[in-house]
Amino acid sequence: MGIFKRLESFATGDSAPLAAVLEDLRWNADGLLPAISQQFDSGEVLMMAWMNRAALEETLSTGRVCFWSRSRQALWRKGESSGQVQRLKELRFDCDGDTILLKVDQTGPACHTGRRDCFFNRVEGDRLVVDREPLIDPAELYRQ
Amino acid sequence: MGIFKRLESFATGDSAPLAAVLEDLRWNADGLLPAISQQFDSGEVLMMAWMNRAALEETLSTGRVCFWSRSRQALWRKGESSGQVQRLKELRFDCDGDTILLKVDQTGPACHTGRRDCFFNRVEGDRLVVDREPLIDPAELYRQ
Repeated sequence: MGIFKRLESFATGDSAPLAAVLEDLRWNADGLLPAISQQFDSGEVLMMAWMNRAALEETLSTGRVCFWSRSRQALWRKGESSGQVQRLKELRFDCDGDTILLKVDQTGPACHTGRRDCFFNRVEGDRLVVDREPLIDPAELYRQ
Repeated sequence: MGIFKRLESFATGDSAPLAAVLEDLRWNADGLLPAISQQFDSGEVLMMAWMNRAALEETLSTGRVCFWSRSRQALWRKGESSGQVQRLKELRFDCDGDTILLKVDQTGPACHTGRRDCFFNRVEGDRLVVDREPLIDPAELYRQ
């Protein structure tokens, strides 16, 4: 039985060694897991991106969130070009070990458009409405 | 230019037709998008699952969340066997049209383990700790 199946019936407070857990994560065919970033205090869902094992291990060891950029095929230290970093407060795995939840402290905007979060497009009837303002002009964000 | 690229520079309150947006979503190779369920009032991230276009359209038209089950290869009307449904309060797409955020009202536990949410495994140093109690015994949940 896999470790995530066993964790399901653990009592609250019981634990398993992280090293064994990392071996049993259900990476997709590209070796990635989706990672949801949530602002730790307000609960805002900021963005979703992807991690490979190296990104996950770097995030856990440095406390600064690192994703895997699928477009650049490289480690993506969030904020490396914009300065808008995510400090890790807590990292969780879901019940079947195929999704990561990051509780983070996001400096400024998480979104490359300069908005606080990436989910600024809301369905309203038969329209999709933009309902958030950028905090910073993206031209500013990537100049520094 | 794709519609999501154009939405980036829309002013707050501007909108695009949903029909065109649905054509421009960035489905993965299996025709799926990740969908994050968040409890609308408390902000808890409950779970992440997948939607194909049929699941998304059904969710929007019925107001009851429907995913695509990758294991069963079938539409999965959340709560169809457990009774623990998700009522849709709001549906959002992210900046590049490849992730869905569902604000929902979750009846009881979202997780098949009987816990409120699926993210009950928290990293603590070199251990993974279970830190949530089931609300309901899963044997109860799937008997009805």
